[in-house]
Amino acid sequence: MRHWLSLAEHSPEELAGLVALARRLKRGDAAAAEAIPGRVLVMVFFNPSLRTRTSFEAAMLRYSGHAICLSVGGDLWKLEHRDGVVMDGDAAEHVREAVPVLCRYGDALAVRTFAQMKDAAEDAADPILRAFARYATVPVINLESAAEHPCQGLADWMTIDEKLGGTRGRRFTLTWAPQVKPLPMAVPHSAALAAAAAGMHVTIAHPPGYELNAAVLDRAASWCSAAGTKFAVTHDQRSACREADAVYVKSWGSAKLYGDEAAQRE
Amino acid sequence: MRHWLSLAEHSPEELAGLVALARRLKRGDAAAAEAIPGRVLVMVFFNPSLRTRTSFEAAMLRYSGHAICLSVGGDLWKLEHRDGVVMDGDAAEHVREAVPVLCRYGDALAVRTFAQMKDAAEDAADPILRAFARYATVPVINLESAAEHPCQGLADWMTIDEKLGGTRGRRFTLTWAPQVKPLPMAVPHSAALAAAAAGMHVTIAHPPGYELNAAVLDRAASWCSAAGTKFAVTHDQRSACREADAVYVKSWGSAKLYGDEAAQRE
Amino acid sequence: MRHWLSLAEHSPEELAGLVALARRLKRGDAAAAEAIPGRVLVMVFFNPSLRTRTSFEAAMLRYSGHAICLSVGGDLWKLEHRDGVVMDGDAAEHVREAVPVLCRYGDALAVRTFAQMKDAAEDAADPILRAFARYATVPVINLESAAEHPCQGLADWMTIDEKLGGTRGRRFTLTWAPQVKPLPMAVPHSAALAAAAAGMHVTIAHPPGYELNAAVLDRAASWCSAAGTKFAVTHDQRSACREADAVYVKSWGSAKLYGDEAAQRE
Repeated sequence: MRHWLSLAEHSPEELAGLVALARRLKRGDAAAAEAIPGRVLVMVFFNPSLRTRTSFEAAMLRYSGHAICLSVGGDLWKLEHRDGVVMDGDAAEHVREAVPVLCRYGDALAVRTFAQMKDAAEDAADPILRAFARYATVPVINLESAAEHPCQGLADWMTIDEKLGGTRGRRFTLTWAPQVKPLPMAVPHSAALAAAAAGMHVTIAHPPGYELNAAVLDRAASWCSAAGTKFAVTHDQRSACREADAVYVKSWGSAKLYGDEAAQRE
Repeated sequence: MRHWLSLAEHSPEELAGLVALARRLKRGDAAAAEAIPGRVLVMVFFNPSLRTRTSFEAAMLRYSGHAICLSVGGDLWKLEHRDGVVMDGDAAEHVREAVPVLCRYGDALAVRTFAQMKDAAEDAADPILRAFARYATVPVINLESAAEHPCQGLADWMTIDEKLGGTRGRRFTLTWAPQVKPLPMAVPHSAALAAAAAGMHVTIAHPPGYELNAAVLDRAASWCSAAGTKFAVTHDQRSACREADAVYVKSWGSAKLYGDEAAQRE
Repeated sequence: MRHWLSLAEHSPEELAGLVALARRLKRGDAAAAEAIPGRVLVMVFFNPSLRTRTSFEAAMLRYSGHAICLSVGGDLWKLEHRDGVVMDGDAAEHVREAVPVLCRYGDALAVRTFAQMKDAAEDAADPILRAFARYATVPVINLESAAEHPCQGLADWMTIDEKLGGTRGRRFTLTWAPQVKPLPMAVPHSAALAAAAAGMHVTIAHPPGYELNAAVLDRAASWCSAAGTKFAVTHDQRSACREADAVYVKSWGSAKLYGDEAAQRE
């Protein structure tokens, strides 16, 4: 079963193909949506969503498909995703029961599940999304998980491509910004990966202590290396922005302070 | 951009045209719904809804359109609508960001946002609905706001017209009724405006202290004047009901006690 | 008005006809869904749902119908269902007002409303579902109520039929199992009724104190008697399972401890 969980699991060529498909759709080539008519997308939300949910639902409807939207803890009871735990809490059902059932009703499953931000390694392992994928018998789509927001990454790629008239060889800077509360790393992870896959020079700039996930950085660096572009991580945000063709401003929490929101706010 | 926010912003002739359109639809003339097929209505709910939400969603579906329903604070995170405030609370996004995005996905936006009932002047200014309209690039439809419930007003007009075999020259009395808790003025505002626009003699009857919004009363009075019908506000509810062809019984809170629910209950 | 509230209200022949219809649909005979195209099903949820909600919504969509899903206390305000009570609490509307309105928008109404588990007689009387049926002008479908889960019962019948290659004369055992919290009796009630209607020998096995509803047991026993099959209730769960062709393992709370969750957990 082929899932859509992470940019890091696909090749830059595959990702470029998806952006090309999106361009065809945007130009009005409805044949590019040939997979959609009559299909049912079941969307499961562990967290709220505005752009992602509405754009997916509108896309399914406009191309003659259907979307069923389910909120965990609202429309649905709470779900357990860990294996081997005693389920005597408020999770009435395990993902291993729920997911195969939902796969009988839908042609694909889409899941939003934000980072818990208590343990950076656990968030990087994407436990809830991976549990869905493990038990699914239809493709699973990541609508932002603990580790990545791959659709956002492709949308960013497409936007930069439109604004700059191409991405290859352009200089992309992802720069950290302050926020009143610590935010997940899923979006900056996917932005960095998308920029690398798009053939841009990638600079990631942030204060000390705000390192992104090492495996994600390695993957982005290796894609840049293969494309012959530069990849750098720096604490000099000012220079990184000055020399960029595209600046991506985003806040994320410090993994060192995970689980300590009071310290993060300072 | 033409919005549907308030009866007071349209002419009685325009409103009569909408009621005539509704009559065609009710008679089964599907051509009257020519705007709907293939269109996506994005509905945003700051508050619950039974009739309005279900009737809009059913209408979109029955006429081959689509509806996407989003609850603020549930499906969506909370939204800030005020300009110039520091967003360090629980509103994760501003209406000025959210609304233009939703307008990219939908062909029209519909919003329900009840009165806060803390400040009568603020409710009359309809701050949330007006913020949506300000930032929208597609038509915004009022599904009941702080100040008005214009669709309810037209439905009341149509019902009275059906029951009495016409509205012109008939005597309409809107009379206040007690309730266990203070209710908003949106519905009585729209009922009074609809009755005036429909060419009825309008009497509004309530105890002292329960005055409706002055601008709404002025608009209703001026429409009655232009139509040659009588407009009156009275504290004599008994007489007002006795002399009416149609009595509209509705509760609303006293603007003088806004923000003081304990006093309202007494 | 014909409703779908309880297996007990239909004859075994009618129920067998519904299972036969489901088999036609499962074989891909879309003509079996001739009632669905263009129809709007309004689904009202007093409680969460995963399988039932998603399967109903997907079925409506796949057969060219529509589903509108409303959660009570979320999308909708709270609803009062009792007659003759003073509505000064948080229920903003009575079922007698809400249901006729929803019936104007939908072609059928579906309701999920779990047992309260405070009073076994009240749960058996299914007060909320029955209030919906009383005021409805379109068919009402039970998506699991306090007393029964009739669609689940038919699905169980169909599954056993598929697995055993027929149900007539087979031995069905419904056996109680422990759970961390007391669960409603709706599912075991419908399972027992479905097994009896399907022509199976029915044994219900549970510890003392876990008796199911007497009227349900009487109905199942009378169906077995008419079909010439055996019906038994026993405390010997081990033997009941050993001698069965199909074992249905389910937990439910003790009616004797209703309203006393602490005692139930022990």
